[in-house]
Amino acid sequence: MTGSVKPRIDLPRLMGRIEALGRIGALPGGGVCRLALTAEDGEGRRLVVGWMKELGLEVSVDRIGNVRGIRPGRVDGAPVMIGSHIDTVATGGLYDGNLGVLAGLEVIAALNDADRVTRRPLAVAFFTNEEGARFAPDMMGSAVHQGALDLDVALAVVGIDGRTVADELAAIGFAGDAPPRSLMPCAYLELHIEQGPVLEREGIAIGAVTGVQGISWTEYSVSGVSNHAGTTPMAMRCDAGVVAARSAVAVREIAERLGGAQVATVGSLRLEPGLVNVVPRRAIFTVDLRNTDEARLVEAEGLAEMAIAEAARAEGATVTSRRLARFAPVEFDPAIVDLVEKTARRHGASVKRMPSGAGHDAQMFAPDCPTGMIFVPSRDGLSHNVREHTDREEIGLGAGILLDVVLQLADGDG
Amino acid sequence: MTGSVKPRIDLPRLMGRIEALGRIGALPGGGVCRLALTAEDGEGRRLVVGWMKELGLEVSVDRIGNVRGIRPGRVDGAPVMIGSHIDTVATGGLYDGNLGVLAGLEVIAALNDADRVTRRPLAVAFFTNEEGARFAPDMMGSAVHQGALDLDVALAVVGIDGRTVADELAAIGFAGDAPPRSLMPCAYLELHIEQGPVLEREGIAIGAVTGVQGISWTEYSVSGVSNHAGTTPMAMRCDAGVVAARSAVAVREIAERLGGAQVATVGSLRLEPGLVNVVPRRAIFTVDLRNTDEARLVEAEGLAEMAIAEAARAEGATVTSRRLARFAPVEFDPAIVDLVEKTARRHGASVKRMPSGAGHDAQMFAPDCPTGMIFVPSRDGLSHNVREHTDREEIGLGAGILLDVVLQLADGDG
Repeated sequence: MTGSVKPRIDLPRLMGRIEALGRIGALPGGGVCRLALTAEDGEGRRLVVGWMKELGLEVSVDRIGNVRGIRPGRVDGAPVMIGSHIDTVATGGLYDGNLGVLAGLEVIAALNDADRVTRRPLAVAFFTNEEGARFAPDMMGSAVHQGALDLDVALAVVGIDGRTVADELAAIGFAGDAPPRSLMPCAYLELHIEQGPVLEREGIAIGAVTGVQGISWTEYSVSGVSNHAGTTPMAMRCDAGVVAARSAVAVREIAERLGGAQVATVGSLRLEPGLVNVVPRRAIFTVDLRNTDEARLVEAEGLAEMAIAEAARAEGATVTSRRLARFAPVEFDPAIVDLVEKTARRHGASVKRMPSGAGHDAQMFAPDCPTGMIFVPSRDGLSHNVREHTDREEIGLGAGILLDVVLQLADGDG
Repeated sequence: MTGSVKPRIDLPRLMGRIEALGRIGALPGGGVCRLALTAEDGEGRRLVVGWMKELGLEVSVDRIGNVRGIRPGRVDGAPVMIGSHIDTVATGGLYDGNLGVLAGLEVIAALNDADRVTRRPLAVAFFTNEEGARFAPDMMGSAVHQGALDLDVALAVVGIDGRTVADELAAIGFAGDAPPRSLMPCAYLELHIEQGPVLEREGIAIGAVTGVQGISWTEYSVSGVSNHAGTTPMAMRCDAGVVAARSAVAVREIAERLGGAQVATVGSLRLEPGLVNVVPRRAIFTVDLRNTDEARLVEAEGLAEMAIAEAARAEGATVTSRRLARFAPVEFDPAIVDLVEKTARRHGASVKRMPSGAGHDAQMFAPDCPTGMIFVPSRDGLSHNVREHTDREEIGLGAGILLDVVLQLADGDG
């Protein structure tokens, strides 16, 4: 250990960086649009890379555009990595992703200020296209970084505007040359806004994230018979809309019956032809099921499937389904979850062990190294929304706990 | 009575006219698009007016473009009118409306062939914009004809393409000069396809139409709270989509519970933002309720309103509603319904007394004169569909019964 001053977060400096980055792609009236690999993303990346270099980090860019800044330790070897993303959705806020990256830089700045060198190296990274709002899949950069997604497949992805990842990486000057798996950390940490209402509603400051829920997305297409709403007696109907409505009610009831961490959502539901006086011939709807427990998630999938099939059968309709996404639950390292929890308590913060309902870059690291996340509250549970907000005191607390956890991991004997 | 030959329908001649009119605005692959007051409608109108004149009818056009052809009787006075429309929806068929007008011409042709003059005058009429597919409201021409809709209001209506009724009437040369209520019939008859599945499913040839169902259209808008589908626990949700789904299920159950002639349809349902992983903040859906009995229709409206309010309350959502349309049920003249039924039986046809689930020009005449309708089956219950079809034998039977009923009304003592 070097330096005698205790490193501490400079909250105004951290907030200044969050606000400066949020001015790039700022939307009139609030919020940010910096879709992955757009000119705005390029400008944001250059701002952050500039800060990395000012802080003395050795910056490298890999072939999918992930940016990593290394701060050497007293020994060589794998770094403790702090990461997240700086791309946003089209109606994003200042904090989702950005907070994790800029809090990582603030950890470095605090260590620099205190003239403190850790035993192990540190890395701060931001990963390409975590949001998936322009290019599918989401968490693209971290997936390629850890070898979970093939580089060439990712580079060939065509976005919503017809451009490829490879072309757009080149266009903004972030087509680097480091290969996948070229910087495997010894541990990975991510500070993130909760993006849900739990911490705020329960009056808790910090979430010690235990893992990421498994996700099951299915699209159902119901085929009924289109008929005149006035001339077709009820007994002669085959109404695709009624099947969809009964299915959506059943999906809600399944989640309530299973309880625990089970959530279920019908977020999209369209009727064709969609006219006031025509019995719908077709209904297309999605079912989003999530659980932290794979067995319960499989159970929910089965119950939903059965209920939807029964609703179709009762109406004489047919139904087909299409898997849109399926991820098994991810569990974070129990030692890191404990460390986050204990550290938060030592900082005097109320803390709750909780799963993440959203996907994060951290889940790509969990199979390969001890991984954890720290949540801070989201006002009104909002994210992917221009009204996304976290109080500055909450940000300061989260960043201070991140610093402390990083120090324990980087200086520990493990 | 003049002439000694019994007048009879010439089915090939009638089918020839139906097919010739169906070639104007014909769609590739079948079906017809002759939206009201388009160039295609103008061409169709000129074809039918030509036939009217060939048959010796005295043709007049009123200020809303309704076309009336008169065949004098042995006495002066109000005519027995046979009417319907020749405009179609964008994906229409050959029969909806057109059958009633062209069967009317075939009645005239049959009487001409038999050298038969009726006691009272006869009129064959087609009414402007029955469908309402280009200009609202539907049944515009017949409503103006009978004084139920103000002429100047109708002329000022702007269509889906930004043109007014007045301009488009002039453009196709059908802005006539006869005022509303200038040709009030002593009785009104309309032969029409059922547009529903009842006759076909029950193996019945002829519907003796007892009236037109009352119609209640309401749009409901549910406001919930948009949230992340992964991070928002079930107990913290206010899901507008769940409210809409529960409402749609309730509306179905209300119709089944009330039974009888009650029908209920949720034909349109949209969610916002409509994304797989976002709890819907808003749901907008329509409820179409119809009944032949006004008191039962009011009861259905009340039950639906309560069920939707309760679904919103249970979810903590708010709901507003907007009346889109409301027509009281129309009852046709019992003597004419009886006459149609008896005449059908005399023709050896199976017949069923039944209400119409769809609106028709006939309902505009019902308050002012004895009015009736004759239904023939619709294959698969389809209409407003390019696959709309009625067998030629069924058309022949319907036209023969129309002829017979017209003769009884025109030669009767009433």
